[in-house]
Amino acid sequence: MRKPADNKHPIHDLLRNRWSPRAFSPARIEPGKLSSLFEAARWSPSCANRQPWSFLFVSREEPEPFGRLLATLTEKNQRWAHAVPVLVLTVTRRVLEDGSENPWAQYDLGQSVAHLSVEAEFLGLSVHQMAGFDAEAARREFDIPAEFDLVTVFAVGYPGDPEELTDDFKQREHDKRTRKEIEEFVFYGKWNASYRSVDRELVADSSVSSN
Amino acid sequence: MRKPADNKHPIHDLLRNRWSPRAFSPARIEPGKLSSLFEAARWSPSCANRQPWSFLFVSREEPEPFGRLLATLTEKNQRWAHAVPVLVLTVTRRVLEDGSENPWAQYDLGQSVAHLSVEAEFLGLSVHQMAGFDAEAARREFDIPAEFDLVTVFAVGYPGDPEELTDDFKQREHDKRTRKEIEEFVFYGKWNASYRSVDRELVADSSVSSN
Repeated sequence: MRKPADNKHPIHDLLRNRWSPRAFSPARIEPGKLSSLFEAARWSPSCANRQPWSFLFVSREEPEPFGRLLATLTEKNQRWAHAVPVLVLTVTRRVLEDGSENPWAQYDLGQSVAHLSVEAEFLGLSVHQMAGFDAEAARREFDIPAEFDLVTVFAVGYPGDPEELTDDFKQREHDKRTRKEIEEFVFYGKWNASYRSVDRELVADSSVSSN
Repeated sequence: MRKPADNKHPIHDLLRNRWSPRAFSPARIEPGKLSSLFEAARWSPSCANRQPWSFLFVSREEPEPFGRLLATLTEKNQRWAHAVPVLVLTVTRRVLEDGSENPWAQYDLGQSVAHLSVEAEFLGLSVHQMAGFDAEAARREFDIPAEFDLVTVFAVGYPGDPEELTDDFKQREHDKRTRKEIEEFVFYGKWNASYRSVDRELVADSSVSSN
């Protein structure tokens, strides 16, 4: 099932077609593809090239570690995520070796997961990221040191059949993807000074020149 | 100048070729392309679809706001960034309407900038993100409310000639891109249990099965 973005300006198909389904096929991800996902994450940029990200993954083929990560998800997420082939816990090193904090640890992790998601789309795989999990339970379960933050868990696999989801998720799978208008979050020269794109010409809002 | 990743597993060319140069051409970015960059950022995923990101950009064509953002960069960053056509301040809404915190605000912003960077690569543009800027100075300069975090400033434009950089930057432009090995940050089933990719077969490290 495809659900391309309703974009106003052209963007690359990998970005346009990427979305976060809940319907996954249980089909195994080929090992070479899994390596490519992490390789994509690897070449993401980061502050001072610190590469603060780590990934702990589990496969449905091995029910023991898989079940332990699955159990940290909210009940609602478990209802669909139990069927995915691979779950990945995303982790970032917030505290540096010298005890100071890396304020860009989460930002850099986000970029790394985004690169992985673009590679996934290229390989015909889908990624669904979840904030809904118990990070402290996962920390205990997998014995992860305090200097690391546990940030999200994502599902990755081939797209599946929405009809196999429970009823409450079926409709959401077909809901239109929505976003704020660009004018609500892109400002030119001044905070809250929106720009308008008129006839392919980028024109600053009058509030810029009148102040 | 191209500097593709020295990747061990195949990844899409847009991810392989993306890197962060300091040599930019002063050439103007076509307005349609600038819109596509922000459109790519727009369709990034986020926690509860909150889309916490904002972008405040300035163009070298208008020296007044451009100079004010440029001046918040470290002296070292200013030495090359003064020549780029567009600088973008990245901002994320950390405090929600109800006063609570969004712990994924920075992570989601990072993803959004990553999507923008992939689109930039597709359009022949380069992005160089900087943590080296004075966020509090930028907040005062552009009067940005306290509920928002100012996270990075990035340069975007067409690649330029490394020979036009100051001497200390010239060599860095040619330095090999480096990353940790996948085994250092991807774990299977257990924290610090690295996996090896042997003959395209993903094999868990023996420390998993022996524990």
